[in-house]
Amino acid sequence: MRMANLVANCGFCLSPAIKTHCSSQSHGHNNIIRFQNSKSSASSLNLRSCSKRSNKLFVTRASAAVQGQTNVTQTPLTGSQQASGQSSLRPKKVMVIGGDGYCGWATALHLSNKGYEVAIVDNLVRRLFDHQLGLDSLTPIASIQNRIRRWKALTGKTIQLFIGDICDFEFLSEAFKSFEPDSAVHFGEQRSAPYSMIDRSRAVYTQHNNVIGTLNVLFAMKEYSEECHLVKLGTMGEYGTPNIDIEEGFLTITHNGRTDTLPYPKQASSFYHLSKVHDSHNIAFTCKAWGIRATDLNQGVVYGVRTDETAMHEELSNRLDYDGVFGTALNRFCVQAAVGHPLTVYGKGGQTRGYLDIRDTVQCVELAIANPAKPGEFRVFNQFTEQFSVNELARLVTAAGAKLGLEVQTKSVPNPRVEAEEHYYNAKHSKLSELGLVPHLLSDSLLDSLLNFAVQYKDRVDTAQIMPSVSWKKMGAKPKTVSV
Amino acid sequence: MRMANLVANCGFCLSPAIKTHCSSQSHGHNNIIRFQNSKSSASSLNLRSCSKRSNKLFVTRASAAVQGQTNVTQTPLTGSQQASGQSSLRPKKVMVIGGDGYCGWATALHLSNKGYEVAIVDNLVRRLFDHQLGLDSLTPIASIQNRIRRWKALTGKTIQLFIGDICDFEFLSEAFKSFEPDSAVHFGEQRSAPYSMIDRSRAVYTQHNNVIGTLNVLFAMKEYSEECHLVKLGTMGEYGTPNIDIEEGFLTITHNGRTDTLPYPKQASSFYHLSKVHDSHNIAFTCKAWGIRATDLNQGVVYGVRTDETAMHEELSNRLDYDGVFGTALNRFCVQAAVGHPLTVYGKGGQTRGYLDIRDTVQCVELAIANPAKPGEFRVFNQFTEQFSVNELARLVTAAGAKLGLEVQTKSVPNPRVEAEEHYYNAKHSKLSELGLVPHLLSDSLLDSLLNFAVQYKDRVDTAQIMPSVSWKKMGAKPKTVSV
Repeated sequence: MRMANLVANCGFCLSPAIKTHCSSQSHGHNNIIRFQNSKSSASSLNLRSCSKRSNKLFVTRASAAVQGQTNVTQTPLTGSQQASGQSSLRPKKVMVIGGDGYCGWATALHLSNKGYEVAIVDNLVRRLFDHQLGLDSLTPIASIQNRIRRWKALTGKTIQLFIGDICDFEFLSEAFKSFEPDSAVHFGEQRSAPYSMIDRSRAVYTQHNNVIGTLNVLFAMKEYSEECHLVKLGTMGEYGTPNIDIEEGFLTITHNGRTDTLPYPKQASSFYHLSKVHDSHNIAFTCKAWGIRATDLNQGVVYGVRTDETAMHEELSNRLDYDGVFGTALNRFCVQAAVGHPLTVYGKGGQTRGYLDIRDTVQCVELAIANPAKPGEFRVFNQFTEQFSVNELARLVTAAGAKLGLEVQTKSVPNPRVEAEEHYYNAKHSKLSELGLVPHLLSDSLLDSLLNFAVQYKDRVDTAQIMPSVSWKKMGAKPKTVSV
Repeated sequence: MRMANLVANCGFCLSPAIKTHCSSQSHGHNNIIRFQNSKSSASSLNLRSCSKRSNKLFVTRASAAVQGQTNVTQTPLTGSQQASGQSSLRPKKVMVIGGDGYCGWATALHLSNKGYEVAIVDNLVRRLFDHQLGLDSLTPIASIQNRIRRWKALTGKTIQLFIGDICDFEFLSEAFKSFEPDSAVHFGEQRSAPYSMIDRSRAVYTQHNNVIGTLNVLFAMKEYSEECHLVKLGTMGEYGTPNIDIEEGFLTITHNGRTDTLPYPKQASSFYHLSKVHDSHNIAFTCKAWGIRATDLNQGVVYGVRTDETAMHEELSNRLDYDGVFGTALNRFCVQAAVGHPLTVYGKGGQTRGYLDIRDTVQCVELAIANPAKPGEFRVFNQFTEQFSVNELARLVTAAGAKLGLEVQTKSVPNPRVEAEEHYYNAKHSKLSELGLVPHLLSDSLLDSLLNFAVQYKDRVDTAQIMPSVSWKKMGAKPKTVSV
């Protein structure tokens, strides 16, 4: 099941400027912030990194790097970093693993726009899943190569691209040695619960891909970037739906007269969600054993599609999934409303989860990067802004649709999942607010815009993909070889 | 890293008796208990199972099956099963995955001796690890084929043998379809913490092998043996060393005025221990989603080597590991004492853990099998009998050695692990006692016997293997290609 390491053939090449800098041992290094503000230390860093790199020239690296960029003046400064007066001169090279995906692409552009030097690492397998399952994004999306070229043309900003599989440690090592990230944002996992429940091979693929990929990232950090801060995307689904308040990663427990603060108990309910539980345990261990610095972002359900950056040009458009495998609740409902399909509420619809706007996803990741965990610290933030039940979302979409003249129906469909349909849910989410998160709460205007967006593209909707096609209970060992 | 599927070439073949039974659709079925006591239901079962099997004849199966066995009169009846008057006529076919290993071999013989029909599933990779790392068991061990032949010759009892890798689902499926187990005891994992910390490739191998192997077992049960009871070997190391009492798998927590019983928080401290944490989460999910019945045996550190069955003949001898990679604390100390090597206490020696005699391992597994979990139940037993600190073990071995005329020294060596060396530890372990466990507590006579055993084989000791060779902090991505 491991995807082959794909080598990009996308017309990018290493900038002559970088080669020159390396061979002449000057202080160019393609990192404008370091170049502008910390000449001597950057120079010494360069000498080391260039000599390390010179013999391993970029087999799997495709770069749109350019000279100069002295027009970049926006340095990353956010939240408590500003408050504490922490130096803004610190190198800010961010590796976005999975940077071609829904959250990853929006994040890569946002960080690039904010002045971070960004490299995307991705094997593009998410695009392959669409082909294999006969699915497609509601929005047409450009190739990653054209996305990056367009971004460069519009902003002058370079995003480096490393095409390959992080389960291939040799590839990942070269990417780390070449780019030398200060932060690694890790979205590079199979991220659909239904996908992981299609059949045994997808369950095994999901856990292998996610767990081993993350192990490799941890080993690459230990070996090549010991100061690098891991910002790992987890999921609120790791907690399940306990009958007590959900805290952020840890819980102080008093038992038989003694007290300790322990990892919050996990009750994940798909092989995908379980893979993230496994990741969290592995990462916590490496923080303790090796001094890795890590932030686990237990993200809620993301909705929306446009960010300031993806809205700049249609070639920068983000993907929007509405199908039963990759689509998430609110996005799916808006597309269903746009095409006149009843909203598909699973079972009783009392399932309550944390939600957030994709504009807050990118903001949260930036906050985590700008305020890194300390060496050895394993930090967990619950990354969502509001709680909704599925029934509440259906009511909101129905009301917003009515304003646009859409008559929205709701239909309860048999729940394909194994989950409580009515339950207590109260999850804490204050840590990102404390770092400065200013949330985009779900509003009429966002729903209007999302519905209008869905209406705009409704001719692209394949209604056969709307209903859930994967059953938690019926999944089996036999491979499903036709599209679901 | 996945080991190839090995096909046995060991001289076993399918008994003509079974073939005859199948083709004539009689009620033989090679299950003496069913045959003797429940003719009609067994017969109908046979018709189905034989016809299922007839087209898939045992590609990877080697069997020492024989006819008759009407001399087997001991039916498995234990603990609360007896008390509740539960039928003893229930089929008792036990698949022992990893049945060639230290705990697995002793368990397979014990269950066979108690009248269970036993099949061993093993890829024998534990023997390969010894070759690769230059290690060896203190005791000479026979090949699995000769072990089984000797057992047959001594007792008339058949143990079936399936040689292959449970990460190979096709192999595992055939084993399940062929043997149709009522219980699957799963020891088939890489079980050494230091092995998992040698280098990246061993860490990845351990998590892949253990997690995917267990996923495959769960899928095989769902697909082919829905009534089968999984008895999975976990480890007390999953809990770490919290500052509160350790309960058996679950903890009732009151938080902000609400109460729930949740999985006990896990804090494992090696990639091996983490793999078992991952397994526990995966298994719990499948119990809930699919109705799998499972018992997770969080076992403590096992000591000893002889059981009633392995002591019957030298070809039945169990392995005894004294090296720094696979050796466990008390066994290592006894061998060190026997050869005049100072006892290697890691750091301060205050590390406290649960321990048990291998004679109790086999007893506990039998109790779990005889009192199966209900469909959908995920049950956790802490499987140990006493707690000791490393310093306490050293003192006990020193005293026992003195009685035998051995002058035993103790030396603190730098701790290769990352762990608390002084900590609170109080782990509950009442559930197996409630089922009828009568423990073999650590006694002078056991220590005498273990020390004498070590002295008997001391010429086989390679003292170069005694010191710890794997460092938790220093492990890296680079493969260690020489023996450690």
